[in-house]
Amino acid sequence: MDVDLMELLITYDVDTTTPAGQRRLRQVAKACEGAGHRVQKSVFEVVCDPAQRLRLEATLTELINPRTDSIRIYQLTKGTLATARHLGAATNPGHHDPLVF
Amino acid sequence: MDVDLMELLITYDVDTTTPAGQRRLRQVAKACEGAGHRVQKSVFEVVCDPAQRLRLEATLTELINPRTDSIRIYQLTKGTLATARHLGAATNPGHHDPLVF
Repeated sequence: MDVDLMELLITYDVDTTTPAGQRRLRQVAKACEGAGHRVQKSVFEVVCDPAQRLRLEATLTELINPRTDSIRIYQLTKGTLATARHLGAATNPGHHDPLVF
Repeated sequence: MDVDLMELLITYDVDTTTPAGQRRLRQVAKACEGAGHRVQKSVFEVVCDPAQRLRLEATLTELINPRTDSIRIYQLTKGTLATARHLGAATNPGHHDPLVF
């Protein structure tokens, strides 16, 4: 199955000026936490297969308010995540840890 | 010169719980604005050459508090930025616009 795995970088801005927005932010974070590793407050690194990606995209599409919230999904060439440069307090996630979808 | 151009995705978390942190956030944003296109509050897409990248990394390293702030720089395979998927209110930056460093 490894041959099907892809690397994604997911970033989001959710409008938190309302209680509903704060709830959406928590839900988006939770969905991403279930799929990958949080490397910043609103940046996740995800290693998944095509079906998992589609499921995650569907979930995120349902959760956000498309007029106020923004999610970006970058599909990276394999190996890109391992070469990320971090300055300061960035964490270095372990992509070999088991993921539960 | 085009042959030397690279695509970067820069994301940051700056601790804004202090006035000094709020100032750092503004300075980091300004440095990134000078180098690329803001696609989310703390996410920038940058197309630059190796020297420009080193200059930007040096500037960011000087600006942040390494104990509290985090900057991540992903060097992407050329063409990756153009394939980014966005959900909701994400903007689609024009990387053919002139950049001033």
